[in-house]
Amino acid sequence: MSSYLLEFFAPVVAIAGLLYSLVFWNQVKYAPDGTHEMKKVANAIRTGAQAFIRRQYQAIAVLTVIVAVLIVVLYGLTGSDESAWTHGVETGAAFLLGALLSGLAGVVSMRVATRVNLKCAAAAKGGLNSALQMALRGGAVPAIVITALSLLGISGLYLFYKFVFLLDVADIPKLIVGYGFGASFVALFAQLGGGIYTKAADVGADLVGKIEAGIPEDDPRNPAVVADLVGDNVGDCAGRGADLFESISAENIGAMILGVALVPYFGVKGVLFPLVLRSIGLVAAIIGVYTVSAKDTEKNPMRAMTRGFWVTAVLTTIALYFCSRWMLNAPTDILHDDLPAIFSDSAIWYFLAGLVGVLTSVAFVYITDYYTSKEYRPVQSIADASTTGHATNIISGTAIGMESTGLTVLTVCVALFCAYWLGEQTGIDGGALYGTAVATMGMLAVVGYVLSMDMFGPITDNAGGIVEMSKAPEEMRKVTDELDAAGNTTKALTKGYAVGSAALAAFLLFSAYLTEAQFEVVDLANVKVFVGAFIGAMVVFFFTSLTIRAVGRAASVIVHEVRRQFKEKAGIMRGTEDPDYAAAVDISTRAALKEMIMPGIVAVVSPILVGVVLGKEAVAGLLMVGTIVGVILAAYLNNAGGAWDNAKKYIEGGIHGGKRSHAHQAAVTGDTVGDPFKDTAGPSLHVLIKLFSTLTLALAALFM
Amino acid sequence: MSSYLLEFFAPVVAIAGLLYSLVFWNQVKYAPDGTHEMKKVANAIRTGAQAFIRRQYQAIAVLTVIVAVLIVVLYGLTGSDESAWTHGVETGAAFLLGALLSGLAGVVSMRVATRVNLKCAAAAKGGLNSALQMALRGGAVPAIVITALSLLGISGLYLFYKFVFLLDVADIPKLIVGYGFGASFVALFAQLGGGIYTKAADVGADLVGKIEAGIPEDDPRNPAVVADLVGDNVGDCAGRGADLFESISAENIGAMILGVALVPYFGVKGVLFPLVLRSIGLVAAIIGVYTVSAKDTEKNPMRAMTRGFWVTAVLTTIALYFCSRWMLNAPTDILHDDLPAIFSDSAIWYFLAGLVGVLTSVAFVYITDYYTSKEYRPVQSIADASTTGHATNIISGTAIGMESTGLTVLTVCVALFCAYWLGEQTGIDGGALYGTAVATMGMLAVVGYVLSMDMFGPITDNAGGIVEMSKAPEEMRKVTDELDAAGNTTKALTKGYAVGSAALAAFLLFSAYLTEAQFEVVDLANVKVFVGAFIGAMVVFFFTSLTIRAVGRAASVIVHEVRRQFKEKAGIMRGTEDPDYAAAVDISTRAALKEMIMPGIVAVVSPILVGVVLGKEAVAGLLMVGTIVGVILAAYLNNAGGAWDNAKKYIEGGIHGGKRSHAHQAAVTGDTVGDPFKDTAGPSLHVLIKLFSTLTLALAALFM
Repeated sequence: MSSYLLEFFAPVVAIAGLLYSLVFWNQVKYAPDGTHEMKKVANAIRTGAQAFIRRQYQAIAVLTVIVAVLIVVLYGLTGSDESAWTHGVETGAAFLLGALLSGLAGVVSMRVATRVNLKCAAAAKGGLNSALQMALRGGAVPAIVITALSLLGISGLYLFYKFVFLLDVADIPKLIVGYGFGASFVALFAQLGGGIYTKAADVGADLVGKIEAGIPEDDPRNPAVVADLVGDNVGDCAGRGADLFESISAENIGAMILGVALVPYFGVKGVLFPLVLRSIGLVAAIIGVYTVSAKDTEKNPMRAMTRGFWVTAVLTTIALYFCSRWMLNAPTDILHDDLPAIFSDSAIWYFLAGLVGVLTSVAFVYITDYYTSKEYRPVQSIADASTTGHATNIISGTAIGMESTGLTVLTVCVALFCAYWLGEQTGIDGGALYGTAVATMGMLAVVGYVLSMDMFGPITDNAGGIVEMSKAPEEMRKVTDELDAAGNTTKALTKGYAVGSAALAAFLLFSAYLTEAQFEVVDLANVKVFVGAFIGAMVVFFFTSLTIRAVGRAASVIVHEVRRQFKEKAGIMRGTEDPDYAAAVDISTRAALKEMIMPGIVAVVSPILVGVVLGKEAVAGLLMVGTIVGVILAAYLNNAGGAWDNAKKYIEGGIHGGKRSHAHQAAVTGDTVGDPFKDTAGPSLHVLIKLFSTLTLALAALFM
Repeated sequence: MSSYLLEFFAPVVAIAGLLYSLVFWNQVKYAPDGTHEMKKVANAIRTGAQAFIRRQYQAIAVLTVIVAVLIVVLYGLTGSDESAWTHGVETGAAFLLGALLSGLAGVVSMRVATRVNLKCAAAAKGGLNSALQMALRGGAVPAIVITALSLLGISGLYLFYKFVFLLDVADIPKLIVGYGFGASFVALFAQLGGGIYTKAADVGADLVGKIEAGIPEDDPRNPAVVADLVGDNVGDCAGRGADLFESISAENIGAMILGVALVPYFGVKGVLFPLVLRSIGLVAAIIGVYTVSAKDTEKNPMRAMTRGFWVTAVLTTIALYFCSRWMLNAPTDILHDDLPAIFSDSAIWYFLAGLVGVLTSVAFVYITDYYTSKEYRPVQSIADASTTGHATNIISGTAIGMESTGLTVLTVCVALFCAYWLGEQTGIDGGALYGTAVATMGMLAVVGYVLSMDMFGPITDNAGGIVEMSKAPEEMRKVTDELDAAGNTTKALTKGYAVGSAALAAFLLFSAYLTEAQFEVVDLANVKVFVGAFIGAMVVFFFTSLTIRAVGRAASVIVHEVRRQFKEKAGIMRGTEDPDYAAAVDISTRAALKEMIMPGIVAVVSPILVGVVLGKEAVAGLLMVGTIVGVILAAYLNNAGGAWDNAKKYIEGGIHGGKRSHAHQAAVTGDTVGDPFKDTAGPSLHVLIKLFSTLTLALAALFM
């Protein structure tokens, strides 16, 4: 009975969450749409975004089906017995489901975000608080949908295998590893395509608009301006949504696999714990979003949002305590005589491990804030370096980005080590590893709220663009500018959170891979493993090079298109003729989708090649060292990019001569360099490292 | 008898080499010194360089003595028996000897280079060929001294332990690991101090001179111009000299340790093989330098130097063949029936492994050339990107640098794998690892010639500066410009070679560490090892950040000094008053020496901390993954920097508008960003990764 309750808990909460997202949606849907001009702009953005998403997902769908078929065939041909084909079909089907739900989450996010942007712009008329609530509640809709769909997919597969195929609980988690791979696969291309599009459009629009034609940002005369606004949606919104969909799916599956080892102690509860905790986290996130409504937000939108985050974190911690007590309770074998009686039960140790995870998520928010906010030394030192020119701005930002990897890595290492040690204190066989799993769950339990904050970014960015392009009154612009600044901060924080959680989840996924591939030692002193590790580290750099170059190439395509329009339609600059926004959007779409293929292939093929040529231990080397380097390089790229961005804003605030000073020109260079770093390469690396994990996990059988 | 011959071979050749360097020196010493103006400039450079070296080595001497005492105490206190103190003293003494000889090599290099620069400038009057020969033969003096001193130190220690302490041959190599650590320790600070000095002076001189005052490079009115020329000597010359002194010392010691395992097969010959091969390589390098004298060098200095490299490589290969046949001959246990009879002896397999090493050195020369020469796509694409501004120049260079890690890593992996496989074919226990050792020896056998080419760089750079500052005739400037361009290429090639050999040596040094620390498996799935590995990767980034920032800070000190002089001595700009070069040199020296401390401490302390807190396996994780990441990041920094540099020169050749065009301004930004990348951070990373190896090897006892 209690077991049934647990098994149905996650799907029921997920469905309830989906229904509840409709409540939020209704609160948003009937809000006013603003003026005719605003609607016109929003309509252009929506049309462009939908066209991109349609084409992008068509391309991804083709690739997905090919890979699914390959999975089945490879499993069937390399397997030793007849069950290999069955296993192949199961993995392929799970892959398709993961891909499908990830795609669905992406489509919903995009459709909602491209409607809420207009509502938020219109709400700016009513002041900061109404626009803030509109953006955050609107952002909560995709956040809930993403979290709920991920839960529903995994718990649905679980129920399907248990009640339709009547399989043993211990056998189920490894059958759903394909789901994680599917989610990663779609996330890879969603993030690559979206990330390349958004920065190519941004850089392209700036190069011709600001620099060549001398018109301000978001000026309606720039044919690429709509493409730029579309980019915010397809990159930050759909891209990061797929990224975190993948994170939570992979973490859930990895933790369930490790939970199987604990069945002798906790029965099915250890396997279901990740799903239950995530479900409660979803509810906590909804409550957190609701608390962001106090009147004093008039002063500082970030403070209100941070309060919401803390509410979510505290609620999650309380839930973590009771869930641990209820589901992970076994007497410890280790004597803790000098501690209160409660410490002789495993529950308290796992609660503490989970708490480590929650605290890690808080730590990442603060580390990211320190390195990318203009309140502190890092950004200010970049602004200072800008006074001596472009080169010193770049050198300084590079140094700051690299420095930021120090605290990032130490935090992950301390968290990992503490969680492992706490897990060890349970005295349970395999309990130490499960400690790291619970910490990862703790960190990802707040994902619903973090996603809402993240969606807030592109929504307010778009709202600002709509207000600007529709020539709305000055006081509305002030509101959207304020929200936009907060949105930039939330976007940076989410990236810090995403990379931190990817790092923590990685160790858990390695362990799951070792369990799946049936070996325990990854010996770096073995020349094959060393070569695998070396290649893994290199692929991270090579992949980054490809993504950065892709932005450059796609941007130059856009530059040529804008130049063509300026040349052929002389009325554009005089304001007597409308630019052809759709043509610019169309050309950006095609360029970005073309460019996403090459890095995508490198990401997928390299671990498979290493695995087939050098064997399963070498893949483990590639996976682990690739992840280490990926986390560090992503932290560097994200934080350097964020710091450059805010150093520019800091100078625009009036320091070192303000706008149009020499320092500002140098700071603009840094900001432009940082764009592909933080919005294309960095986020693509988050996805890459998780893809490494889920791919090796799903294809473990091939490397044996 | 034959054993005695072998044991005394290396010291005799080393002493003969040192004597022979006097022959080269005499050829150079009595060459004419040029005009009074040239002598005056050269004198200022020499005085500045010697002042820097004196202060730098004083600081290093203090640190070295402290560390030597710490080694003795730590060994004594943590050891379990009385022999611990003895072992501590032995290691400490070897450490001091390694440090002393490395320092001596540095001082000699510097003194020679700061005399040859003037001779080369004066020889420019006689045309390209006489100046080329002067620079290369002058550069050969320190190259021979460095190689010979390294050999002499190791073979001297060997003889000392064998004939004074009457120790068993198998026990000796591990007693001289301290020597390698001493060499690394000095190299770390020599490279850090020199690298920071050279780029701080360069960037500082450019920022005030070119940008603020609008005077050309090497203009005698710039007070920092002498500091800039001093920097070429202390960075490229003393720094890289110490770097490669360390490489060959560490490689010799590591290979000797692995050779001990092969005593049952080859007796003492396997232990002495590295010393003998290196000795012959030294002779081959001297012959190689002599061949660079043909008349057709009038056309292209690089072609003549490349021919000398090939002569050295071919001679080395022949020597390798006969040495293998003579010293590494044991019948193989593996049947190679389908191959000629020669393949049933281990000698041929080791010869092939050594050949892999020689070919790897050639491959690295070509890879570096591809990525940093203006003949090929990479540099040209950066030049193209410069037409759209500073930011696209930086983005493009970043992408190229990251791309270059691909071929770098694949080459190392293929070499490592082939050498290991070839070693495996000998059927000898431990023979596979020794295969990687022989490959490393093969790669480093040509080090004498490569070092001559490297010293050629700062000598010709200085010669150009002397000619420019002394207002010598136009035709002399043309000669030195031509040589300077070739010198830039040789400097880039040496860096590629240095990073490649460090990578290859690394695997060998890991294996030596595992032997010393008495364990065989470095299990990345162990949470401690994983944390160690994560920290190792992070330290590489953090250290890079510190070195880059150090350049920025030291440069700003120089900027302030130059501004002060311009303000206080109004006659400088009018040409009526001499600037105070010595004050600028002095201030640069103090700034650079202050800045070298912090990265140095991070480099030394982090592996010790990880070792003491997390144990010997965790250090191995730090060492291996730190090395992987260090090699990749160094390749990125070196190649991006070299490519930016030549993209600027490519544009200056007349492409995209030539000098003073917008594209050129953007390219100057890239060049300035690349300066600390390629001349400070990258080379410091070469040293860092070898320091990790030698430090862990020497302190292995502490982590157990």
